Amino acid sequence: MTKILSVNAGSSSLKFQLLEMPAQTVITKGLVERIGFEDGVFNIKFEDQKIEKVLPIKDHSVAVQLLVEALLDLKIVSSYDEISGVGHRVVHGGEKFDRSVVVTPEVLAEIEALSELAPLHNPANALGIKAFMKELPHAVSVAVFDTAFHQTMEKDAYLYPVKYDWYTKYGVRKYGFHGTSHQYVAERCAELLEKPLADTKIITIHIGNGGSLSAVKGGHSVDTTMGFTPLAGIMMGTRSGDIDPAVLPFVMEKENLTIDQAVNALNKESGLYGVSGASSDMRDILKLVAEGDERGTIAFNLYIKRICDYIGSYFLYLDGVDAIVFTAGIGENSIPVRKAVVQRLGALGIQLDEQANNVMGEEALISTADSKIKVFAIPTNEELMIAKDTYAFVK
Amino acid sequence: MTKILSVNAGSSSLKFQLLEMPAQTVITKGLVERIGFEDGVFNIKFEDQKIEKVLPIKDHSVAVQLLVEALLDLKIVSSYDEISGVGHRVVHGGEKFDRSVVVTPEVLAEIEALSELAPLHNPANALGIKAFMKELPHAVSVAVFDTAFHQTMEKDAYLYPVKYDWYTKYGVRKYGFHGTSHQYVAERCAELLEKPLADTKIITIHIGNGGSLSAVKGGHSVDTTMGFTPLAGIMMGTRSGDIDPAVLPFVMEKENLTIDQAVNALNKESGLYGVSGASSDMRDILKLVAEGDERGTIAFNLYIKRICDYIGSYFLYLDGVDAIVFTAGIGENSIPVRKAVVQRLGALGIQLDEQANNVMGEEALISTADSKIKVFAIPTNEELMIAKDTYAFVK
Repeated sequence: MTKILSVNAGSSSLKFQLLEMPAQTVITKGLVERIGFEDGVFNIKFEDQKIEKVLPIKDHSVAVQLLVEALLDLKIVSSYDEISGVGHRVVHGGEKFDRSVVVTPEVLAEIEALSELAPLHNPANALGIKAFMKELPHAVSVAVFDTAFHQTMEKDAYLYPVKYDWYTKYGVRKYGFHGTSHQYVAERCAELLEKPLADTKIITIHIGNGGSLSAVKGGHSVDTTMGFTPLAGIMMGTRSGDIDPAVLPFVMEKENLTIDQAVNALNKESGLYGVSGASSDMRDILKLVAEGDERGTIAFNLYIKRICDYIGSYFLYLDGVDAIVFTAGIGENSIPVRKAVVQRLGALGIQLDEQANNVMGEEALISTADSKIKVFAIPTNEELMIAKDTYAFVK
Repeated sequence: MTKILSVNAGSSSLKFQLLEMPAQTVITKGLVERIGFEDGVFNIKFEDQKIEKVLPIKDHSVAVQLLVEALLDLKIVSSYDEISGVGHRVVHGGEKFDRSVVVTPEVLAEIEALSELAPLHNPANALGIKAFMKELPHAVSVAVFDTAFHQTMEKDAYLYPVKYDWYTKYGVRKYGFHGTSHQYVAERCAELLEKPLADTKIITIHIGNGGSLSAVKGGHSVDTTMGFTPLAGIMMGTRSGDIDPAVLPFVMEKENLTIDQAVNALNKESGLYGVSGASSDMRDILKLVAEGDERGTIAFNLYIKRICDYIGSYFLYLDGVDAIVFTAGIGENSIPVRKAVVQRLGALGIQLDEQANNVMGEEALISTADSKIKVFAIPTNEELMIAKDTYAFVK
């Protein structure tokens, strides 16, 4: 058995799981928050214990030190050497990385260079990698990219109809994100369908605070809704998704905004939050809908429509579909969202099984037996995917 | 019988038809170009005659004087009083106009106020209206709006997932364009289906140099691809259509562009032209495809995909479809474009009738008899729609 750490480092947080592979058992998991603050928070769960410490956490190095020391202190490991690999979620792999790779100095430099395309994420991901390389120098570091799964898209799906040299000179194209999650649930879905992955056509709907859909053919992404950045595609908690780009100069003039402020408004003040004026959280939106709140209801309807629009597009682009999968925070837990989406899929020969849909956070077939296309809720597990990819390099 | 002028005034051009209503006969038609130039061009066709004059045409008033004098000179009319109505294409009617209206001073003021939303079009449309009101003061002037047909969209189709006050304060929403054309071909399609319009569900594809799709339910637009401006939606001759809005700040920084320059690039240097690097004209793109040109082929494939994506979305949003209609320059005349689109619709139970598709500029059923959804090519006739709407106010 081999112990693998699965890590997701943000700019001020670090999420981790320690897994026993290939058994896929989660040994411990935790979270470091408020990195860079005097009141940093370190959390770890192990067996029945749940430890929380509030202390200054200067940087990612300190966060990682806390973590590995806790693993020893709690006797989760008896020596650091037991940890054979550390798998890191990296948001942007550009066109360079179409799969997970062992982190070398060159890979690390590439990840940092790709910060231009993901300025909020890649620098933090790189900090996380460096901190673990320092604390656990013997462990194999593996980078698992959010974009890699979508590198199988064809040009007609990934290019924008803009000046071609924006692509060749600056890399302006659709990259897509959430790839690890789309891949995980598509693979799990093929198992549930009892079909070889290579023979499946699946639409995966990853909806949490962010969200994207992917059209997955034979286990490969052929299209996805996020684009050059995670702003594109469906409506999200605070992000607009697709809008007429010519809205930008108009509101910039009206509100005297810079382009960065205007795009920031599309990222942070739009989506469910912007339309409802109340909350970016789907649970709050559903309360508003139940109360008959007008703007909450509009927000909900817009949200559902935009998901269905892409389901229709992908149904055609895949030339038919075997299954549709809901995953992530909303997809796994929001019975009303799944219901509202599936009820609009009658033209595809899909009927909702209301009873079966009555689950949260569980794997379930939620379409009726006579539906032409099966619809599932499948909890995602990006940590496990990262551990699997990492284990492949250490075993 | 009643004579009606159908007018489309641009910033430096004026297209006209004189129709006999209700017979719908075109008596004469013509075009004034290079208004505002010393070498203005006046064209008119009548019976077998085709007259072209090159002369200074100072402004829209002069253009209209030339036109009405020619009608007398050529004995097309014996008196101006014979022209009972003048119908004007007006691009933007905002939320104010959901149908054609007789132009009053208040209406004219509204059209001018809406120039904010259509700065390239409404001012010219207003100039045309004023010039005809001066020359033909007894005729009823009617404004026929490109946006009016789409005013039946529900909020989930016309609102953007952005800050709600961008809508309430500035009117930022989807308006849609080409409404007169979408309406015309949808109505004609219902006749061909031999179904009451109210019972039909039709997807109309208006593709020329610009282009848009509309989802038409019971004769009413419920969704369309153009948005706040005509930049949105499918790929066009020089327009990008939808892209991740976050591309804008990125290329602005890379190329040191203002927001207006960047959006101008999306409007004027993108689409077929931007991707192929060669031409905005589909006929040229098809030659490139035949020659195996890489970028021409990419441009063609992108163009087809984006149309199909919306067909899929609208199939679901309409909850099934009776017919799909191609119209306008490319839709009526491009056999390869129709073929490429329809060949991707197999998942909807549609098969192309290659023989039947072999037509240009003619009405034709181009799907096979056993197709679940009928596909038509139908030449559009915006001039006739404008004349019909105008005639309704004068008869």
